[in-house]
Amino acid sequence: MKITVVGSVALDTIKTPFGKIDDALGGSATHFSTAASFFTPINLVGVVGSDFPSEHLDFLSSRNVDISGLEINPEGETFRWEGYYEFDLNTAHTLDTKLNVLSTFEPKIPHDFKNSECVFLANIDPDLQMQVLDQVFSPKLVVLDTMNFWIEHKKDELIQALRKVDIAVMNDAEARELCQTHSLLEASRKILTWGPKTVIIKKGEHGVLMFTENTHFAAPAFPLEDIADPTGAGDSFAGGFLGYLAKSSDLSEPNIRKAVVYGSVMASFNVEDFGLNRMKRLTQEEIEFRYSAFKEITGF
Amino acid sequence: MKITVVGSVALDTIKTPFGKIDDALGGSATHFSTAASFFTPINLVGVVGSDFPSEHLDFLSSRNVDISGLEINPEGETFRWEGYYEFDLNTAHTLDTKLNVLSTFEPKIPHDFKNSECVFLANIDPDLQMQVLDQVFSPKLVVLDTMNFWIEHKKDELIQALRKVDIAVMNDAEARELCQTHSLLEASRKILTWGPKTVIIKKGEHGVLMFTENTHFAAPAFPLEDIADPTGAGDSFAGGFLGYLAKSSDLSEPNIRKAVVYGSVMASFNVEDFGLNRMKRLTQEEIEFRYSAFKEITGF
Repeated sequence: MKITVVGSVALDTIKTPFGKIDDALGGSATHFSTAASFFTPINLVGVVGSDFPSEHLDFLSSRNVDISGLEINPEGETFRWEGYYEFDLNTAHTLDTKLNVLSTFEPKIPHDFKNSECVFLANIDPDLQMQVLDQVFSPKLVVLDTMNFWIEHKKDELIQALRKVDIAVMNDAEARELCQTHSLLEASRKILTWGPKTVIIKKGEHGVLMFTENTHFAAPAFPLEDIADPTGAGDSFAGGFLGYLAKSSDLSEPNIRKAVVYGSVMASFNVEDFGLNRMKRLTQEEIEFRYSAFKEITGF
Repeated sequence: MKITVVGSVALDTIKTPFGKIDDALGGSATHFSTAASFFTPINLVGVVGSDFPSEHLDFLSSRNVDISGLEINPEGETFRWEGYYEFDLNTAHTLDTKLNVLSTFEPKIPHDFKNSECVFLANIDPDLQMQVLDQVFSPKLVVLDTMNFWIEHKKDELIQALRKVDIAVMNDAEARELCQTHSLLEASRKILTWGPKTVIIKKGEHGVLMFTENTHFAAPAFPLEDIADPTGAGDSFAGGFLGYLAKSSDLSEPNIRKAVVYGSVMASFNVEDFGLNRMKRLTQEEIEFRYSAFKEITGF
């Protein structure tokens, strides 16, 4: 299955205790697409400004990402995020956010993308997420990610959007805030009542939990020697997760577990270097090797 | 193998958002012994005061715990801890600590305990932990737990004690503080260089990591409906872990993994009710059922 993703394409300026990168290619749709492209072709829908370097377009195209849905808005600049991390790499500190062309973005799904069987609604305004779903023909699998901003400012709309998706993905703090409970089990049960058949909760260095009505799955994070830059880990997770699911076309619970592990594998690579640097030199062999290592570290 | 444990026996007063308990039987050696007693007989070495209720002695004896090494100091009162937890049950807030008879405690290992093949040095002064090791004859397996107080006040002595043990157990914050690094992988590698062949890092609701020179194992925590009182979770983990190892007499790496899971099982039961209430009504069948559930939630 081909995946259509709608989300942000950004230029990121990031500082961590291990280095710095300026105006690097980033954004939720970018990290997702890059990770997912190791498994299946991607249709990307988003917006950039007239300042967006053509080399980034070339990179995405080279990764099997169809960018015909990436609008280039000649009247504005690309979305920019600037932030830093301290030694506790779990928390991103935002220094500056310039929405630029993203502030007026209205996703238009190209005709060729409308029959996508698989749709990823990356972290954008839940109203836009619903606009996307209004434009696509009956996809087999819809996955939604979100963030604290929408939970705080558009909670009702977010819950409306959740009613229309198969799998909800968010991090632990977001699930707790959305459901007003410290218990991730309780939070997941609540989200399941809204519509999704599967809830996936990302816990950063503590791995991932997956809940369905009757099953529970826990995957650890891969123990890494060096983490350079956690930016995009969540979207890389989603890319590996959905990329594997789309490639295998098997939506059984056991296969969704495998997809969670592939997601964790892709996230673990993404954080090893700044921006997309690690993904640019990643090989299929490395992915399979780390997947096997995940089996080894969890078996008993 | 029979286990000799040296640690605290306490009377705990605990408040959580889910209730309160006064002067309940607690302490590291108590929680450890109770959990371990489901697997193997225990020799307990510790001290209590003249105020210690005889019903608690009866309870320990009923659990297959030999209390002939539990000194009753007629000149003082039992160690008391009072604390509370907020909705984030990961952090204990201490309201009052009265060391009482624990402040002058010098562990004396009864002659019958000296040939124990398995020794657990629960969280006490590392100087006392070394005194214990001076008194026992060549045990096959020595496991040590500690806490931030000793890391901050007796770091050199703690590292000396670590040189003499086979397995070090501590929580994530303690490992980070002891090794002055945020990376648990790096911290574990450092601890391994001091002597232990295995390092186990407890992460509360995020499960447990185990490191040896060449292997790594990650176990999640069991997803619980209700957590009433986290006190003693770490010691219950150690009790299930070492109890299973001692019972099976198999110190291979695959069997140590199983022991980690049994430890996680016992910790998950312990937190379901206040003090030792859940352990008092726990059955072998429930333990085996939850062990199977752990296999189910981690397999892929």
